[in-house]
This record gives sequence, C-alpha cells and structure tokens, in this order.
Amino acid sequence: MATDVSHNGIETQQDRLLSDNPWFKAEHDIPAEEMLELTSEIDHWTDIDHTKRTKYEDGSTIDWLREEGAERERQQRLRSQPGLRGLLLPILDTSTMWLIVVATGVGVGIAGAWLDVLVKWLSDLREGRCSYGFFYNQVACCSGLDPGEICTEWRTWSQWLNVQSILGQSLLQSFVYMALAVAFASSAAVLVQTYAPYAFHTGIPEIKAILGGYVFDSFLSGWTLLIKGLGLALAVASGLSLGKEGPLVHVACCMAFNLSRCFKEFRHNEAQKRKLLAAAAAAGVSVAFGSPLGGVLFGLEELDTFSNETEVMWRAFVTSVIAAVSLQYVDPFGTSKLVLFQVTSISDTWRGFELAPWLFLGVVGGILGPVLIKLNVAVAVYRRHSMPNDWPVLEVIGVSAITAAISYLVVFLRVQSSELVANLFQECDPSKGDYHGLCNPTAMWHNVFLLTLTAAVKIILTAWTFGMMIPAGIFLPTIAIGASLGRAVGLLTQGLYRAYPTAWVFSACPPDPSVRCISPGFYAVIGASAMLGGVTRMTISLVVILFELTGALSHVLPIMISVMVSKWVGDAFGKGGIYSAWIAMKRYPWLPSVEYRDKGETAAHVMRPVEELVLIDSSQCTLHDLDVLSTDDRFYGYPVVNAGQLLGYVNRDKLRSSIEPLLSEESSSGTSPRCTFTRNVSSNEADALNLSPIMEKVVVQLRKEVPQELVVNMFQKLNVRHIMFTQAGQLTGMLTKADVVEFLNAEFPYAAALASTPRMVESFFR
Amino acid sequence: MATDVSHNGIETQQDRLLSDNPWFKAEHDIPAEEMLELTSEIDHWTDIDHTKRTKYEDGSTIDWLREEGAERERQQRLRSQPGLRGLLLPILDTSTMWLIVVATGVGVGIAGAWLDVLVKWLSDLREGRCSYGFFYNQVACCSGLDPGEICTEWRTWSQWLNVQSILGQSLLQSFVYMALAVAFASSAAVLVQTYAPYAFHTGIPEIKAILGGYVFDSFLSGWTLLIKGLGLALAVASGLSLGKEGPLVHVACCMAFNLSRCFKEFRHNEAQKRKLLAAAAAAGVSVAFGSPLGGVLFGLEELDTFSNETEVMWRAFVTSVIAAVSLQYVDPFGTSKLVLFQVTSISDTWRGFELAPWLFLGVVGGILGPVLIKLNVAVAVYRRHSMPNDWPVLEVIGVSAITAAISYLVVFLRVQSSELVANLFQECDPSKGDYHGLCNPTAMWHNVFLLTLTAAVKIILTAWTFGMMIPAGIFLPTIAIGASLGRAVGLLTQGLYRAYPTAWVFSACPPDPSVRCISPGFYAVIGASAMLGGVTRMTISLVVILFELTGALSHVLPIMISVMVSKWVGDAFGKGGIYSAWIAMKRYPWLPSVEYRDKGETAAHVMRPVEELVLIDSSQCTLHDLDVLSTDDRFYGYPVVNAGQLLGYVNRDKLRSSIEPLLSEESSSGTSPRCTFTRNVSSNEADALNLSPIMEKVVVQLRKEVPQELVVNMFQKLNVRHIMFTQAGQLTGMLTKADVVEFLNAEFPYAAALASTPRMVESFFR
Repeated sequence: MATDVSHNGIETQQDRLLSDNPWFKAEHDIPAEEMLELTSEIDHWTDIDHTKRTKYEDGSTIDWLREEGAERERQQRLRSQPGLRGLLLPILDTSTMWLIVVATGVGVGIAGAWLDVLVKWLSDLREGRCSYGFFYNQVACCSGLDPGEICTEWRTWSQWLNVQSILGQSLLQSFVYMALAVAFASSAAVLVQTYAPYAFHTGIPEIKAILGGYVFDSFLSGWTLLIKGLGLALAVASGLSLGKEGPLVHVACCMAFNLSRCFKEFRHNEAQKRKLLAAAAAAGVSVAFGSPLGGVLFGLEELDTFSNETEVMWRAFVTSVIAAVSLQYVDPFGTSKLVLFQVTSISDTWRGFELAPWLFLGVVGGILGPVLIKLNVAVAVYRRHSMPNDWPVLEVIGVSAITAAISYLVVFLRVQSSELVANLFQECDPSKGDYHGLCNPTAMWHNVFLLTLTAAVKIILTAWTFGMMIPAGIFLPTIAIGASLGRAVGLLTQGLYRAYPTAWVFSACPPDPSVRCISPGFYAVIGASAMLGGVTRMTISLVVILFELTGALSHVLPIMISVMVSKWVGDAFGKGGIYSAWIAMKRYPWLPSVEYRDKGETAAHVMRPVEELVLIDSSQCTLHDLDVLSTDDRFYGYPVVNAGQLLGYVNRDKLRSSIEPLLSEESSSGTSPRCTFTRNVSSNEADALNLSPIMEKVVVQLRKEVPQELVVNMFQKLNVRHIMFTQAGQLTGMLTKADVVEFLNAEFPYAAALASTPRMVESFFR
Repeated sequence: MATDVSHNGIETQQDRLLSDNPWFKAEHDIPAEEMLELTSEIDHWTDIDHTKRTKYEDGSTIDWLREEGAERERQQRLRSQPGLRGLLLPILDTSTMWLIVVATGVGVGIAGAWLDVLVKWLSDLREGRCSYGFFYNQVACCSGLDPGEICTEWRTWSQWLNVQSILGQSLLQSFVYMALAVAFASSAAVLVQTYAPYAFHTGIPEIKAILGGYVFDSFLSGWTLLIKGLGLALAVASGLSLGKEGPLVHVACCMAFNLSRCFKEFRHNEAQKRKLLAAAAAAGVSVAFGSPLGGVLFGLEELDTFSNETEVMWRAFVTSVIAAVSLQYVDPFGTSKLVLFQVTSISDTWRGFELAPWLFLGVVGGILGPVLIKLNVAVAVYRRHSMPNDWPVLEVIGVSAITAAISYLVVFLRVQSSELVANLFQECDPSKGDYHGLCNPTAMWHNVFLLTLTAAVKIILTAWTFGMMIPAGIFLPTIAIGASLGRAVGLLTQGLYRAYPTAWVFSACPPDPSVRCISPGFYAVIGASAMLGGVTRMTISLVVILFELTGALSHVLPIMISVMVSKWVGDAFGKGGIYSAWIAMKRYPWLPSVEYRDKGETAAHVMRPVEELVLIDSSQCTLHDLDVLSTDDRFYGYPVVNAGQLLGYVNRDKLRSSIEPLLSEESSSGTSPRCTFTRNVSSNEADALNLSPIMEKVVVQLRKEVPQELVVNMFQKLNVRHIMFTQAGQLTGMLTKADVVEFLNAEFPYAAALASTPRMVESFFR
C-alpha cells in the first residue's frame, strides 16, 4: 500500500504511520498521547531527509528557508557522527565545495580562452587562410617574423585562389565574407534551435531569476553548455552585432551546475546550488572582461544574490581570481595581459573644460540607452507575434546577411567589434600607424560622420539582434556604440581646440595646438561608460569593469561622473536596465532589488484576504475534502486553520503523497475519515487522522497594518516564499513572492509579453 | 495640568484626552464608542508628529521602522499639499538632501586638502623653516627653482640659528625634532581631553555603531569636528605611529551631521540622518586615500549600512566623487593626482615563481594582523585599569617622546609614514636617486635587517598608539608595516635571483641579472595588502583602495591573492578585524554582518521567555501600577498583553508623559483608576482609562521554533529593534537587538572591557 510515498521527505515517519494504519487503529487502540509521541520527533526544521527530497519542478520557486534548514540539518548530522567521522566528514564536505569552486574557476578560464581562440580563427577565416595550415589564425600564422618583415604565409581568399582582376578580387572577398557570416550565424541558430533552445540570448535575465530562487534546471543542462559555447563562437565570428560577455556568464553557470550535480550535497539542495552558481557567474564576468574584481562586483550589484552573505561573496572572489589566473595562464593571444582594451598614452591629467563634452556624452548615453532598450523590447514583442516566431533560423540568416552587407561597406564595422573598440580607445600615435584614418586631422568631419553612422547602424542592428535565436551579449555592442559616439565628440573637441587654440575655454591647454591636450581615445572610453550606464544602469561594477578593461585608472573620476549622469538621465525615462526589461517580459519571479517606496499603503492593499484563500480547516475536514482540494486547486500549498486560528501551512506535494495511499482504502470503506492538524488531539477527535506531522509551522507572521514597503523589503531581503498575516492568531490574509513580483512589475508596459505561459509563476490563489 | 507632555509625539491627541479629562468623565459621560472614535485616528504608523518627536537619548538605539514610518508619513504630507505646493515641496525636499550631499562632498574634499597642507607644514617645521616666511612648507618654500638648482631658502634649524659645530648641529636638530614632536602630540591630547573627549581614536567603530542605529550625537558635534581636524593634523605631524584615514571618516561624518542639523527633515529623523552619514563616510575614505571608488566600496563592505539600499549607495557614490573632485581641484601638492603612492615602472607582467614569496607575504600578513589586534586589545585593556587611564596626556607625551627618539635613530622611521610608504613602493631608478640606500645591492642584508626592525618597532608603537587620547588611524601604520616586510622579501628574492640567475626557478626571467626581473617595490604593495587584510579583514574594498592608491591595476591579481590568503590565515586566529574588536570592547550595539550559523538551536534558546519579561497586563492594571512599573523598570518599553494574548508594545517615554499629568490627580482623589489598552472597550471596562492610542501594534511576530540563524538574520537585515514570539496570539517571549549583539559577542574574550558603563546598551529585562 505504501508504494507511492518514496518521493516524500518524511518517508520514515509516514511509513510508520502507515504500517500502524493509524486511522483505522486510532479509533480504538492508540490514545492521543501516544500519537503525540509518535509524531513529536518531527518538526518543520528537521523533517527533511536530504537524500530523498521532493524535487522542485521547473518553473517553481524554491523555498529558501526550507533549503537552508535542510542544509543546517545535514551539517549537523555530519558533525554529530561518532568519532573521527564527525571530524573528517565536515572537512570533506567543505573540501568538496572548494573543489567545485576551483574546478569551475579553472574550467571557466580555459573555456574563455578556448572561445577566444576559436572566434579569432573563425573570423580570420572570413578574410583568408594560412598557407601552411588551415587551423592557424592570422596572428599564429604570421608569428615568428622579425619586425618590419611582411607576412606572406597568410593569404586572402583571392590570393589563395589566384584571382587576378581587382573586380574579381573584391567580389570574391565580399562574397566569402558574407557567405561565411551567414553560414556561421545560421549554423549557430540551427544548433540552438535543434539541441538547446535555452542557449539563445544572453542568459543573464534567467541567471538573475535562478539565483533569486527560480527553478529552471534545463536552462543549465550539459547540452545547453555545449551549444551555448559553440554557438557563441560561431555567432561572434559571424560579425553580428553581439558580444560574448553575457553568454559567458551563462556558460560559467552551466559548468558549475553540471559539476555540482556530481555531489549529493548540492544536487539535493537548491539553495547551496544557487550559492555556487553566484560564484560561477562572477567568474564568467571575470573571464569575459579580464576583470576579476569587476566580476565580484557584478555579482554584488547586478545579480544581487549575495548582498549580505559574505560567505558567498568570498566564494565569488576566489572563483573570480582563479578564473582570471587560468585565463592569463593559457594566455590565448600571447600578451600575458588581462586588460583587453588597453588605453595607451593618455595624459595623466584632465582639464576642467573637458567636463562639458563628458557631461554631454553622459546625457547622450542616458538618452540612447533607454532608446536602445525600448527598440529592443518593441522588436522582441513584434517578433513574438509575427513570422520570425515560427522561423527563427530564417530570421537569423536574414539579419546576418544584412549585417554582413552593411558591415562590409562601413569601414569601422568591417572588423570585429572588439577590434573596433580597441582601435577607438587608442590614442593616435604616429609610430603605430593610423586606425582606419581616424588620426588624419584633415578628415575630421568625414570621421565624425562615419562614427555617428556606425553608432546609428549599431543601435538598430543590436536592437534587432539581441533576442534572436542565437547566443548574444549586449555589452560589447553597447561599448562599440558608446565608443564611436565618444570618439566623435572627442574629435570635435580636438578640432575646436586646433581651430581656436587660444580661446579662453582652452586656457588650461598649451597654446600650441601641435602639443597633445585632448585625448579623443579617452573620450571613447567615456562614451562607452555612458552608453553602458544607460543600457544596464549598473554603477560601481560598471566603473570597475571599465577601468579593469582599459587600465585608465587615473581617469576614474570622469568615468564615474559619466556613469552617474547617464544613470540619472536614463532613470528619468524609466527605471531598470535591459535585463530587468527582459525579466519583466518573460515574467520570471525575480524581485528587483530597488528600494520600493509606498505611498502610505499597508500590506492590506496587496495581500490576498483570507476570504480569497484556499484553506484547510482542521476542525472540519475529511480525507475526501483534502483529496478534492488538492486535485482542484493545484497551488504550492495551503494554509491550515482551526476555527480561523492559523495553525500552519501544508505543502501540496507532501499532502498528496501522504493521503494518496489512504484514498484507496477510503473508497473501499465507503466513509471518509476525519482529518486533523492539531497536535493536542482532544478526546472527541481521537479517531481523526492526524496529519500534523506534514504541516509546517508558519514562522513569520505579520499584521496587515504593516506598511507595504516593509513587506516588500522582507521578501527582498529574507528570501521568504510567503508571509501570513494574522491578528491575534486569526489568519487575515497571505502574500506570496509571486504576488509581490507581479505587483512590482505592474507598471512595466510589456510585462509578461514573452512569458511562455500566461502564468509562468505559480500563484496561491484562484 | 498638561504642562509636562510637550515632549510627547502624540501631544494633540493627548491634549484632547486631557482637556476632556477622560477618566473622570468617562465614568459617566463618554460612551465607549465615542472614546473609540476619539482615538481611532491614531495608528502606529501615523501617530508621530514629526515636528515634536521624542528625542532619543545618547546611548539608546533608534527604532528604524518607526523612523522610516515617520519619514513616509512626512513625504506623504508634503505630496498631499494642495495645488502647487504639493508639487514644489517634494522637489524642494529632494533638493535639500542633494544640497547637503554636495556641500558635504565639497567640505570633506577641502578639509582633506587643508589637512594635508597643515600636516606638511607642521612636520617640515620639525626640520627647519623657510627663510622668507614662517608659514611656507619646504616644497612651497623651494618652488620656482630650476631643476638642479639648490634650495637655499629652506634652512634647517641649525642653519637658521647659525650653529657651526657638527655636534651642536645634530644635537640641536634632534632636540627640536623631539621637542616639537612632543609639543604637537601633547597639544593634540590636551585639546582632545579638554574640548572633545570623543575626538580621540579612529572613530570608525563608533561610526559603524551609529550607522547601525546607535544614538551618539555628542560624538558628531561641532566641537568634535573642530578638535578632531586640528588634533589630527598635530598628531600626524608629531610623527606618532598613526594615520589620518579613519579620523577623516569621522570628520566627514561630523560635517554631514552638523550640516543636516540645519534642516528639519534630518534633525527630526534619525534614519534619514544615518543615510546621509553613510554617504559622508564614503566621502571621507575617498579623500583620505584619493580613492572615490574605494570609498563607496568601503561603505558597502565595512560600514555595511547600505547593503541593499541602492538609494544610499547612489548617494555615497555622488558624495564620494564630489569630494574627490574637490580635493583634486584644490590640489594641495600641485600634482593634480589622486593616486597617492604611485607605483612607478613596475613591469607589466609577473612570473609564476613570484607567487611563492607573495603567498608567504599573505601568510605573514594573516599572522601579524591578528598579533597586532591582540596586542592592541591587551594594551587597551591594560590602559583602562592602570595609570594612563587617569593621566592620558602624560601617556601621550611619554609615547610621543619614545616614538620620536626611536624614529630619529632608525632611518626609515624618521620621515613621515606616508613618505616612507611612497618610497618603499617606488622601484629603484638610477635617475631618481636612492631612497635611504634601499637601491644599493651590496647593502641587501643591511636593508633587510633595517626593514624588519622598522616593521617590528612599528607594530609595537602602533599597538600602543592606537587608542591613546589623540586622533589616530590604523590604516597608514599598517600599510607601512606591511610595505617594510614586503620590500624586505622583495629584496631577498631579488638577491636570490642575482646570486643564481640561471636556477630553474628563475627560468622565466632573463638569465642576465642586470635586467630587471623582480620589482621589490611591488612586493611592498603586496606586503601592505596582506597586512591590511590581516588587520581589517576587508576584501574587495581593500583591493580597490589599494590599486586606486598605487595605480597598480595590471597587478590586481596578485593583490587579490594576497588579500585572500591573509584573510584566510587571519580568520583562523579569530574572526573580525580590529574595528570589530573595538566595537566589542566598547560594547556598542552593533550587529556584525557575518553570517551566523547556529548548530540547530532555535530562537527559544536566546529569547527571554515571557516569565522574565516586565509586562503590562491590560486586563488588570491601574494607573498606580503603571507608575510603579515605569519608575522601577526603566526599559525602552513594555509588551502589553491581555490574558497572555499579545496586544502591542508601549514605549516608556510615551507612557510616562501620558500618565504623569494624571498622577497628581490620582494622588488627590485617593483611588487609582483602571487602565486598559484594548480598543473595543467592553461595557464593564467603560470606566477605564483608555491608553490604547499610545500602544504600538507589534508588526513582526515569530514562533519560538524559528532557527536562531533566521532570527539573527532578521535583526541584521531588517533593522528591527525587537521581535516578539507568539504562539496562536499568546506571547511566549521576546528578543531585542541588544540581546542579539551580546549573544554574538559572547565569544570575544574582552567583550565590554572598555564599556563606559556596565550596561551601555539598554536591555529590556531585569
């Protein structure tokens, strides 16, 4: 008879109850006291046997308190082992955790390096090939040459195929360029669509939701890891307007997830798993930007899971460092540098008048950021309700063809975005050559026009690309847009200075315009910070990432100012960056960490009043009632009351697995037995089936007069799943995390526009 | 009769009750319904009239929820003003806040710059004076010279006084050096002792406590500001082993506090005031280290007040930037640089074998950090119970004389600590001269010995100095200790390399030892990070401060590794940095943010059970009872129950001011009237004095089965002042923040060793 209870956390106790056949026996044999004794070992905080726990289904939200409790319980069991085992097991346990942390760090570092190599080779392939080996990229092919020597081993396709005519050469080159772009992009899309549909997009919104407690295991599967990595390399190499940063965070989390599955303590504890994932995410950023500190701060600010948990932050710190060390050790480009876009030869000081163009860039970033977000949201919503929704691969082919065609025409766009950004950040140095003619002072207006065009094209392409069926990050395109605009403003300022070197605004500069006074390369950095600030609304982590990316530490103040201004301006057009927009559109149960301010409302305004709740009344329920209830109202659980007095909370899964074996007997016997949830069974209820062992005590109770602000705050900071409101013990209402999320997202116009089901987050209410 | 209620927040209502003479009239005239109506406007969240609020006394802890509620209420009142006022007043309100933020930033920046100038002048005065003006420091005096020209305007004292004999010169110089050191230190001590006793020490432990809710207004007074600033300059100039960083944070907070007092909204709201102080503290660090980002992160990690409040972090960000910009604008040393200890010419790459000495430095820092903390704690406890406690100025004179004597003998100690650190961080560069002979390769052992001696002397001097009756920071001495040790290890490594350039460990270096491979200056940076990590146990903010301080961005990985290792090693000798130790010794009600892990205990183990509580029983109390209770048991407030059922909580101040005017009448009438706290006054209680308006509803109630961990977590994250435990509405116990603090500090051996009273934190229990 007890065949179906094996998934249940309280199996042992339940088995005892069942073998004793409590409800039939209790009528005559077992006095209330003994029943009390039978169940008194069980408690909410100890009733979870970690080896066999109810598994959360994808789409649900974990109960942090329960998971933490289970972990506490497990730790205690380890420590209480007799003798040497009690000493060694906890050490082994901690070592396991650090093993996973180190392995994840090393894995992410190597994956990042491997990805760089792959991307470099694939994108070089669009131009030509190495004569002595197909698998060498241009740099590797031409290595070992003396300075000044010309590399003859690397051949463009027209050289390789011996095309002589100029027209034929350029036609062939552009054809191969575009054909390979489309081929790379479409194979990425096919891979994603066929093997791992969750490997598309950046992954950061999902990671944020998962770290907040959302259960989405298929998002982190081994297949997703593989396809996201491979697809990312193909997508980046195709020259589409996307970056590798966000997806690398996803890849890092997949790694940690799959590693952690090998160990029982993480496989069975969703909270512990999430703490590992947070560390892995930091390592992802660390490798993506070569910014170990930025990774930790990104986790702190943007992912916002370990806000107060020093332990997790600490783990992220270690993972981040190890990942960066691994990346530097593998050293994919032989430079031994973590700094990706080294800003060279910027002057150590900056002049007061430069604040004006920088503030202007801040404002521009603050305006264009929300424009990019709104465009992207509009495209995403349009895509959902039109043709591309059914033919995602065709969309990718089309967009990559258009991107390749446009990119081939605009000189700044033809190179990889990362190369473009690196060039825009460089100061002009006669000894190092001219980047795309940027350093030609007579071509200023031409350059400014081209740069503005590049930014405009990039905004449109990025708004469309971010959300297609390929892995795609938003960071690099945003940096490229901002850097183009920044460089343009820098060139204009420089031009102005060259035209009027003695004007009073330039009095801080030397009057001789041939002396360098304005560094347009640094204006590009400022532009990039402003644009990133507008799109992501990050603050501190952004500043740290930016100067770890560029090495421009002496200019930290201007970077901070531009991020500050662009966030201010951006927030005027609507709070929240692009990730929040996607979370709201996908309706993930993620609580924004923004400080919510009510206008004097109390919890009574948001809570579900007791009349709307599906309750179990302990004083008058039968087994049949419970069966009907738990079949009809498939909520996560139900509050239990006794004459209005709140007793506790029963999880639906637990309830089902407890009552299901009894139901068959019930139908045979004909009458439905009474059930009770009170422990102190009074004499006239001694014949009732005592279900109190499966009931959880409700630990946090509030009065409904509490300000909304405080309730939202509790959900944000304490990771509770639901809060009950009582008045002198009487249940007056209830509020779940899902309700709070919905409530906070209500203002966003496209909330839930992309949710896969109308109710992705389960609610407790009819 | 109503003369004594003016301090009371509910004056208006109370006045109405009084003018109606409720308890005499109620017997016959006022029906229960009307009384209900009279009081129904009052609610816990709205009963605070912000213009007249109960002032917290120094030594108490603020009620965050109450303060936040008052602020919410005030905001609403502003917005609900009719017409244009409702639009303009909130804008004016926000502007006020930003005005204070900007003014604080500018003020801190200027104060920092002014302090630098003063210190430079005073400490130069110990060597000599400028011939054409007493108030010029050496640099200002010798400015305007061509390179190579010798400065003749700056004269040492022996030159000035025309002392000819060598012996006379050195005797005079050393005498002036020591005499001025003692004079500076003792005047600082006299100033502090006479005018502002709270201006001694670093101030960070107190700031941490204040930001956490401790009320300590005299700590932030205008006098303290003045004396701390002036005393700090004198103390630093005296050459004692102390730094200006911590005290600058204190100065910044004093500024913000005194600025905020000019505005009603901050004067009357302790929570709002604290949010401003957090921003000011960040600005203090920003100016002290020239590290705007480090300031924000210091606030985030060490002060830990705005962990989740983006609004406050944002404000800190702005204040920090403005302070740094002001400092850079004033530019006290004409370098236009924020980076204080620029690390020059370190090679861009580092070699794998260098990890070994760096790890060693990490371990050393992790051991010496706790040693310094333990020494310092021992000295502080000894000082408390011996002579220096009564003669603090004499102690300062003695220590400064000893410090000056030793410093004059050891070459590295004779200069200011900041100069020493700057020199230790420098690489040897033949064109720039030799710092104290550090670059002489033949004097390696001599240098190593001197550096180790310097570190040892500094540890002892710092352990004694930090806690004397003068303003003193711990950062700079710690950096100096670490830098000395780091440089010593660097010199040893370099010596080893020079001796065996072809050994396999050095295979990554060029075999020619004349080529630079090892940079001892960077070893000093690593040593400083490790030592700081061991003493403060900060992580991320420390790394950011360190590379903002040195500009060594390319070496962020080794810095992170050394901080990591030293924290790991340090934590093995006891959790918590030096600030936590002082907080525990002084018994401030500050909750460490460390994640507390219980061993399966529940809240029942720490809470005070209901039997030990001083309760008000609404069903059977008289005015006389309340009088006796609130006179005998001077707690912050009392839980109110009705037959065991929890009704609410009454603040003692409110209770006193409500009942005091009635007591005189009571004594004249002879009988003591009944009091009730229930609103729905039943018919047989209609003659009772209804005190329910002054009762607060208890919003957060827990079951006592909650794990300890969760309760501690709630206190840490939700800023609650106390938590009530109930079971079906029945009060079972109570826990206050003070109890939790005491509980968490219980392990620390010297807890409360320096508390000014045996019970600095008030408790709720007998």
